[in-house]
Amino acid sequence: MIFNIEHSDAGSQARAGAIVTSRGIAKTPLFMPVATRGTVRALSFRELDEIGFEMILSNTYHLYIRPGMEVMGEAGGLNNFMNFHRPLLTDSGGFQVFSLSDLCRVFPEGVEFRSHLDGSRHFFTPEKVLDIQKVIGSDIMMVLDQCASYPVTEEEAAGAVEKTVDWAEKSMGHWKGCFDREKQALFGIVQGGVFRNLRRECAGRLMDLDFPGYAIGGLSVGEPGEAYRDITSFLSEILPVEKPRYMMGVGSPLEILHAVTYGVDMFDCVMPTRIARNGTLFTSRGRINIKGSIYEKDFNPLDDQCLCYVCRNFSRAYLRHLFRVGEISALSYFTYHNLYFMKSFFNEIREGIISGNFSDICKKWESVYLSGNGKN
Amino acid sequence: MIFNIEHSDAGSQARAGAIVTSRGIAKTPLFMPVATRGTVRALSFRELDEIGFEMILSNTYHLYIRPGMEVMGEAGGLNNFMNFHRPLLTDSGGFQVFSLSDLCRVFPEGVEFRSHLDGSRHFFTPEKVLDIQKVIGSDIMMVLDQCASYPVTEEEAAGAVEKTVDWAEKSMGHWKGCFDREKQALFGIVQGGVFRNLRRECAGRLMDLDFPGYAIGGLSVGEPGEAYRDITSFLSEILPVEKPRYMMGVGSPLEILHAVTYGVDMFDCVMPTRIARNGTLFTSRGRINIKGSIYEKDFNPLDDQCLCYVCRNFSRAYLRHLFRVGEISALSYFTYHNLYFMKSFFNEIREGIISGNFSDICKKWESVYLSGNGKN
Repeated sequence: MIFNIEHSDAGSQARAGAIVTSRGIAKTPLFMPVATRGTVRALSFRELDEIGFEMILSNTYHLYIRPGMEVMGEAGGLNNFMNFHRPLLTDSGGFQVFSLSDLCRVFPEGVEFRSHLDGSRHFFTPEKVLDIQKVIGSDIMMVLDQCASYPVTEEEAAGAVEKTVDWAEKSMGHWKGCFDREKQALFGIVQGGVFRNLRRECAGRLMDLDFPGYAIGGLSVGEPGEAYRDITSFLSEILPVEKPRYMMGVGSPLEILHAVTYGVDMFDCVMPTRIARNGTLFTSRGRINIKGSIYEKDFNPLDDQCLCYVCRNFSRAYLRHLFRVGEISALSYFTYHNLYFMKSFFNEIREGIISGNFSDICKKWESVYLSGNGKN
Repeated sequence: MIFNIEHSDAGSQARAGAIVTSRGIAKTPLFMPVATRGTVRALSFRELDEIGFEMILSNTYHLYIRPGMEVMGEAGGLNNFMNFHRPLLTDSGGFQVFSLSDLCRVFPEGVEFRSHLDGSRHFFTPEKVLDIQKVIGSDIMMVLDQCASYPVTEEEAAGAVEKTVDWAEKSMGHWKGCFDREKQALFGIVQGGVFRNLRRECAGRLMDLDFPGYAIGGLSVGEPGEAYRDITSFLSEILPVEKPRYMMGVGSPLEILHAVTYGVDMFDCVMPTRIARNGTLFTSRGRINIKGSIYEKDFNPLDDQCLCYVCRNFSRAYLRHLFRVGEISALSYFTYHNLYFMKSFFNEIREGIISGNFSDICKKWESVYLSGNGKN
């Protein structure tokens, strides 16, 4: 993996660049839709392709549970399995282990857990999750880390940082020993909760290991928006400028704009697809929920500024009807629209950085998403 | 509506023709996918378009309940509402009233029922269901009829025929008085259960009313295959050759081939889409159910003879995985494949009739669908 910065914003730390992998180029700032179990929910791959996403994320934990690594191996990796050949990033599975599995015990060597599905017992080590990601064949792999929940004491957060750094060292050793490092890059993950000192320490010790890229983990997990913004801007002064920065699991348009302002290049989030399945749509005038009776006879598109297939073809009244009667196609249409919105949003951000009016774009979206229509 | 017979099979009563409506031409024999509530389940309209269906069916009862006729009227009819502008056929709602609604009482004037959704009370008359179909704007409307269930006594079946004919007369009067008959055609429905004498009587009395087309109702509702075949072939001697014949709610490949052999031109059935959502796929070698563990590492397409998007892109192993983890996209892919299969099947039937090898096609499919792989 190679990361090139092509343009830097004059008024902020925002930058536009490109991540080059053996599967192709992904321009940054970049949004990765989440293909949790080898598909983006409610969407076909040709729709994803059409929207134009250049990299997707998939979840190691879920793929490990099902279909399992035997099938994955015989398929020749996830890209072959799902027949989608653009760049792929996978998480380490750690987040799901800590949040989903029934029983989860942390040892120095790794984490023991039971499958959320059948209760079977498993053990993830820093080395094992990389071996799994080798079978999956991802272009960018993530290290096993320990994400502290929110709220958390400073002591607990410090323990999670200790574990995260220790596992990062083991990950780096295993990666250097057993991987084609040009083909499969490895990112470290900065933890430390809302504590600046822990974030500084974690970032510093990871940087000593010299990862090809750095992720910011453990944000947007329930902390106040102020803490999110504080840690994001704080880390922007620490992380190396020349390496890609990835904000994990974020987020809303305003969270994204803030992070881009502070030099973050990559994002993933299930939010656009998850809220879509609940009938909530992003529009150029804010969020709307299609269930509202005001849309019963509204024959306008979801967003009259949007050029997506759904907005070019269907009315709010029709889509509301489909959603109310429980049609699957409503979920597909909404998912499509929200992802199209995200892609257009990121295109606009990138073009703004390149053309020098990124701050105007920030102002525009702040006025839309801080106003009446739905929080950020 | 105009119906033209273009080719007649030498060895059977099968014929190839075209139904011409103001919204376009639909070549026969014709399969109509079912867009129950204004969409084919789990499929987008552009996918439907791509497969190439020339006419679809929608259900008056469901649309009447939701979104209701006020929305439908303001939308300018169903085709505008769903932005799909190919020919549309609607049923009368009678079948759903009798099978779905909680309370259903038949009066000489029509049928009283409660909505399956909220228990609200409604009354359908022959005239009212046509007025609803006028708002919907269907190219082909169906009369209100009474479909006897199976098994049923001859007396009960005779009563249903009596009601059906009586309502057909009222429908014809209303249609002649209040409709643009060139734009919205009206089909009569032959009832009579498995009783030849009742079928003859019903067909004869409907033919006195001179409908533009005739549907065969009340078959494939649980009766033995022999009774289905007997009534189908029996009616082929009675119904006027020059009018289109529509077998309602049928069905499986072999039921369809039998009916085509006896001169039936039109079909609709939820079966291909319904079984798809259960993981059952039509293939050129018979039905398969993707849940089977034999497909766990089967990296072949669903059907290696099929040229559909799904078969060109995804393996059985991948699709099985998606289905097992409950991904919506599996339902969409399976629906797409099964409808593509049906369209190809009907293309083959039509080409067989035109080129003179329809009987070979029947033999081929009988050997596939009577053999090991799943009933018909």
